[in-house]
Amino acid sequence: MDQPYVIGIDIGGTNTVFGIVDKRGQILRSGAIKTGRHEDVGDYLDELAQALNDILKDPFSKDTIRGIGVGAPNGNYFSGSIEFAPNLPWKGVIPFAQMLEERIGIPVALTNDANAAAIGEMTYGAARGMKDFIEITLGTGVGSGIVVNGQLVYGHDGFAGELGHVIMRRNNGRLCGCGRNGCLEAYTSATGVARTAREILDLNPDTPTLLRNIPVEDITSKDVYDAAVTGDEVAISIFNFTGNILGEAFADFVAFSSPEAIILFGGLAKAGDFILKPTKESMEKNLLKIFKNKVKILFSGLKEDDAAVLGASALGWEV
Amino acid sequence: MDQPYVIGIDIGGTNTVFGIVDKRGQILRSGAIKTGRHEDVGDYLDELAQALNDILKDPFSKDTIRGIGVGAPNGNYFSGSIEFAPNLPWKGVIPFAQMLEERIGIPVALTNDANAAAIGEMTYGAARGMKDFIEITLGTGVGSGIVVNGQLVYGHDGFAGELGHVIMRRNNGRLCGCGRNGCLEAYTSATGVARTAREILDLNPDTPTLLRNIPVEDITSKDVYDAAVTGDEVAISIFNFTGNILGEAFADFVAFSSPEAIILFGGLAKAGDFILKPTKESMEKNLLKIFKNKVKILFSGLKEDDAAVLGASALGWEV
Repeated sequence: MDQPYVIGIDIGGTNTVFGIVDKRGQILRSGAIKTGRHEDVGDYLDELAQALNDILKDPFSKDTIRGIGVGAPNGNYFSGSIEFAPNLPWKGVIPFAQMLEERIGIPVALTNDANAAAIGEMTYGAARGMKDFIEITLGTGVGSGIVVNGQLVYGHDGFAGELGHVIMRRNNGRLCGCGRNGCLEAYTSATGVARTAREILDLNPDTPTLLRNIPVEDITSKDVYDAAVTGDEVAISIFNFTGNILGEAFADFVAFSSPEAIILFGGLAKAGDFILKPTKESMEKNLLKIFKNKVKILFSGLKEDDAAVLGASALGWEV
Repeated sequence: MDQPYVIGIDIGGTNTVFGIVDKRGQILRSGAIKTGRHEDVGDYLDELAQALNDILKDPFSKDTIRGIGVGAPNGNYFSGSIEFAPNLPWKGVIPFAQMLEERIGIPVALTNDANAAAIGEMTYGAARGMKDFIEITLGTGVGSGIVVNGQLVYGHDGFAGELGHVIMRRNNGRLCGCGRNGCLEAYTSATGVARTAREILDLNPDTPTLLRNIPVEDITSKDVYDAAVTGDEVAISIFNFTGNILGEAFADFVAFSSPEAIILFGGLAKAGDFILKPTKESMEKNLLKIFKNKVKILFSGLKEDDAAVLGASALGWEV
């Protein structure tokens, strides 16, 4: 039977978005439901299955779908479960892939959102043709998907690739959401950048900057970018600080898997050269000699609005 | 044709040792030549080929050998070359596998010594049946071989797995042989332990310890072990310091590839519980919550005298 399409589902804290995707990475039909409307995951899945059936109308049908890929926070590829996800309404271990498959009758594979982004990048984006790369998602948190030898690294338990939680500062490191101190995420996530902004403003009370026009607790990484674009030196120094730590981390990642490229995805990647330049400089400065001038740092080739669904959908080819 | 044997060759700075190995990891016949006798690598390879022919006598013959595996410093699996090895007499890039294959007429595969140890561990040692583990060699330097999904991680250029050179101390880190500061190797190699001994003795001039009976520049990690066995508290604190840093590094490695086990190999592993206990404690303390109490730290299951040849030989099954 000809099955030229897959379905991608991205489960976010607020919305669940999904779409039918073809082999070239075109989203041909899409939809969304609220993630938080049902406290019972069964009710949520009933609504999701109904919404999927609604888009599986002519010229599509279940028979044309190769598989369904799901990207979810704390999604475990091996078990197909969502395990203790702090930002979702359902507690404990949810055998999500199995429960959806029972309702829709199409094979379902599930992984976490950062891994889904890496698979999407390899299938449709900047990592096409690469067998060894690392996808770093710089959003509210810092996630990662590691590809070695053309395969995603899941580790023995399905939880590999938590590069947002390597320790970058062992003395007086910032408290991270994970409860430990000094994690990469505490410095290079969007919230980490906002925190750096507040620290730098505090430490330099007399230096003029556009950022003083914003209440200090409200400053976002987007505000820092907007200021940097006008040449604001404090804003630029915030990105330099961030890129410096990110580059230090990348140099260690390279010593691990020697990737062809490290690919930046997510909100902070929109800062373009403001984040890319200091990151690259710092990485090169910190690399072991045999790795110097070999590793590319690239921006994601996935269109932002489509990236989550595309990434998840790519897993649908592998079910 | 029945090919029940492989040959393993380990190239060290002083000696080149080799042996014929069967499927169960028994070394059935072995030999050795001096690595440094010939400045010209061609002359060295002529001697090596002759020595191999000498052991390939009845009941063995070339026809019974599946392949030859070579472990060499700076060995690159992809190219089969030894590239700029500082401790070998031949400079530049040596197409070693090809040159040996031309002389002996058996397929040759080559990798670096730490990767060879990991393959040996997976084939004959403590990692039998594991698909995800990390082998850490704690010798003069610190090397590593990373296995993901049952495959060695070579990276896009063949140089992945330089875990001795992740940065553990970014401020006032010790100078490493690689020219950078704060590398894991500068703390947890045999020479790193000796350095720690000198520092701790300097910083605590009034604390009694057996180590003061040895000229401070001559103290080795073996001396520290001998003192620790007698209950010497300074010696024990040296291992605690070392294990603490090693455990911090392991916690970061787990965030990368989530291995089932991290396996200790090489001289320092002989310190047994003196190094294992503080390493495990520190790793558990530093692990991200989802990884706690999941990752084993084991000692190599390869017999020390045979390990280098066994590790290299295991690659011979894959040529």
